[in-house]
Amino acid sequence: MALVVIGGVAAGLSAAARARRIDPRLEIVVLEKGPVISLGACGLPYFVEGRIREPEALTVFTPERFRKERNVDVRTGARAISISHPRREVLLESGARVAYEKLIIATGARADTPGISGAGQPHVFHLQTLDDAGRMRDFLRERKPRRAVVIGAGYIGVEAADALRRNDVQVTILERSSHALLRADDLLTAEVRKQLERHRVELRTGVNVAAIEPDRVAGLPCDMVVIAAGFKPNAELAADAGIELGRTGAIRTDDRMETNLRGVFAAGDCAEVLHLVSGRPTWIPLGTTANKCGRVAGANAAGARERFPGIVGTSIVSIFGMGFATTGFSVAEARAEGFAPVVARIEALSRPRYYQGVKTIVELVADRTTRRLLGGCVIGEDGAAGRINVVAAALHARLRVDEFEQLDLAYSPPFAPVWDPLLIAAQQLIKEL
Amino acid sequence: MALVVIGGVAAGLSAAARARRIDPRLEIVVLEKGPVISLGACGLPYFVEGRIREPEALTVFTPERFRKERNVDVRTGARAISISHPRREVLLESGARVAYEKLIIATGARADTPGISGAGQPHVFHLQTLDDAGRMRDFLRERKPRRAVVIGAGYIGVEAADALRRNDVQVTILERSSHALLRADDLLTAEVRKQLERHRVELRTGVNVAAIEPDRVAGLPCDMVVIAAGFKPNAELAADAGIELGRTGAIRTDDRMETNLRGVFAAGDCAEVLHLVSGRPTWIPLGTTANKCGRVAGANAAGARERFPGIVGTSIVSIFGMGFATTGFSVAEARAEGFAPVVARIEALSRPRYYQGVKTIVELVADRTTRRLLGGCVIGEDGAAGRINVVAAALHARLRVDEFEQLDLAYSPPFAPVWDPLLIAAQQLIKEL
Repeated sequence: MALVVIGGVAAGLSAAARARRIDPRLEIVVLEKGPVISLGACGLPYFVEGRIREPEALTVFTPERFRKERNVDVRTGARAISISHPRREVLLESGARVAYEKLIIATGARADTPGISGAGQPHVFHLQTLDDAGRMRDFLRERKPRRAVVIGAGYIGVEAADALRRNDVQVTILERSSHALLRADDLLTAEVRKQLERHRVELRTGVNVAAIEPDRVAGLPCDMVVIAAGFKPNAELAADAGIELGRTGAIRTDDRMETNLRGVFAAGDCAEVLHLVSGRPTWIPLGTTANKCGRVAGANAAGARERFPGIVGTSIVSIFGMGFATTGFSVAEARAEGFAPVVARIEALSRPRYYQGVKTIVELVADRTTRRLLGGCVIGEDGAAGRINVVAAALHARLRVDEFEQLDLAYSPPFAPVWDPLLIAAQQLIKEL
Repeated sequence: MALVVIGGVAAGLSAAARARRIDPRLEIVVLEKGPVISLGACGLPYFVEGRIREPEALTVFTPERFRKERNVDVRTGARAISISHPRREVLLESGARVAYEKLIIATGARADTPGISGAGQPHVFHLQTLDDAGRMRDFLRERKPRRAVVIGAGYIGVEAADALRRNDVQVTILERSSHALLRADDLLTAEVRKQLERHRVELRTGVNVAAIEPDRVAGLPCDMVVIAAGFKPNAELAADAGIELGRTGAIRTDDRMETNLRGVFAAGDCAEVLHLVSGRPTWIPLGTTANKCGRVAGANAAGARERFPGIVGTSIVSIFGMGFATTGFSVAEARAEGFAPVVARIEALSRPRYYQGVKTIVELVADRTTRRLLGGCVIGEDGAAGRINVVAAALHARLRVDEFEQLDLAYSPPFAPVWDPLLIAAQQLIKEL
């Protein structure tokens, strides 16, 4: 009897690798519906851009290598179509049945854009698979499109816009909501728009696209369209097998990543996790979370006892070289979660002026009652990732802004000013509280 | 009656500025022995290097500007030579007496190299004041020295070596202890040596310099010497007034930065602070700490009630573009502090290989019994400051390595790999525990 993992990307392979480490003799089968495993989908925009030349750079493991090095039975082109938990078996599209003792569901998520007609045309692209990216790259090379519309101003949308612009394509981004980067945050959206406009990419928010016409979208002439809006957990396979989904539509698990069916785990973009700031389940599909949850699911499925505490919702995206990093909640989100948020926003230099410091924006949000930090945002060309990670660590540790203000952060002119922008923001926030 | 601050650099000016903000009507006097205030001494090596052209770039405030903007009576060339607390007055070298109600001692630290003869020669330099740096710069320009010896492999020593090397001077660093960067850490020292050697700077440890001869030091021919070893708190003024010093030789205070004399505070390089990892007082003179303590001292002296929790000993230095960052304790230091340290050291890429990731070394130390993180070290050309700050935040929050391993850190190819080197190091450390 075996551990069967459905899905051969981040969560699935992390789970398989970790299970192998816990139990060197366990039989482990990975079922991957596509042709490749371990795709680093976050690199796809850079393949479209042309920075990455070889698609092989985006896959860490070939099935052969994973098989050989980890002694895991990796099966590509193996699409699971149903799970019978009473029989402990997975039915594949091919008709084959794969028996399991323990099961890990790591089926990921998919683009989901109901209500947009014309999405099947040859000049319309998604950006989720290697095939998507290859098609887009060929189209750019062969058709030399002049004007593109990107639908969706989330991470993939802005990264695609950046990649296309660097290929001399005029780009307009159409976003249904009033916000960019999936965060209810007016100031962040304003900064994203400013940076896009600096590079002559237009962002139009509040635009609901119903149809993609052959030569235009929402009245905008274009010869290329990228759909990067609407993302949905692949949870149907689990739901059909009697596995409970959460309020978010993704698979519900406990902190061991086990579902309501004993011995069946879920991890990655198909599963919910706890948001450590709100204390509620959330669905924020990211590779980092998928890897961590996958490890925990794999460990527990192999007989260890580990837990995944949750996330704080940290992310970063580069838009034409500028980092837009967020963690926790924006002030609007914090309010919606029932906090009494207070926000401070400062601009400071990333390093001393005499050492080429550049403008950095830091926003911090805290709860008025408890003074606990609830979220933050860092925007800048220098050090945004490092700084948002400090805020993320503070959210994990439930630090109050008064504690955060006193953090002993590294200083030396080549790296930071003596008062780090994070600390200046904290001082400002304390004044506001 | 007034608040008098002795010292017009980091701690002193932070104190004065904060006191002004707390009490807009308080009379505040700053007594600075030198000709300038608010010197950013950490920038001096870059002035020597030539990167900074104008010495004005290194002073944030002129006395006039601070006077005008903060309504503070700044007196330069005002050297305090004694404090009479019974009379509540400070005696200046000029013979003048300055009455105080509250006093903040921010007298800093000084180079202290007893036992080195010949330190007064014109080709021998310190690097603590603007005058020192100006003299060194003139000497480089006019005398074009070919070979320099730097005594001391602390921060200033390696920064001076870097600056001289970029001015085409051959440099040898002589360090009395067996370690570089003031940290009992063999691996760190080995990496520092490697990086120095890559740029043809030799580091000799375990060399005790007794005399500087006109043309050589410890047998090494040279036409220039920089003394960057031995640093000592300026605590005599306080001690003579009956203020208690701590075990470290610096002024002892409580967490409000108040000394044993009521109404007399101390902050900055002359004072001890609590080390949050050991729970014991420590003396690690750094500008960041000076600014923070100064603010707290100023607030309390002006009638507020604030506390300074302590530091974790975070620092970073650039050696020919590579960041060497440390926080908390090395394994040897942790052992000396009574912990049962376990260490893990990993090398990983700072970003994905396809996005120009470069080698990053991360070392993490945890206590075997409590699994609490005790310290860390990050070395690399990309992201060392941001990464060490995450460890610093974790030390402040007393995170266990198991919690640290699950930190939700930002990921996107232009900034970091999906498994941040910090998390890989934490995974490795957990295996070792």
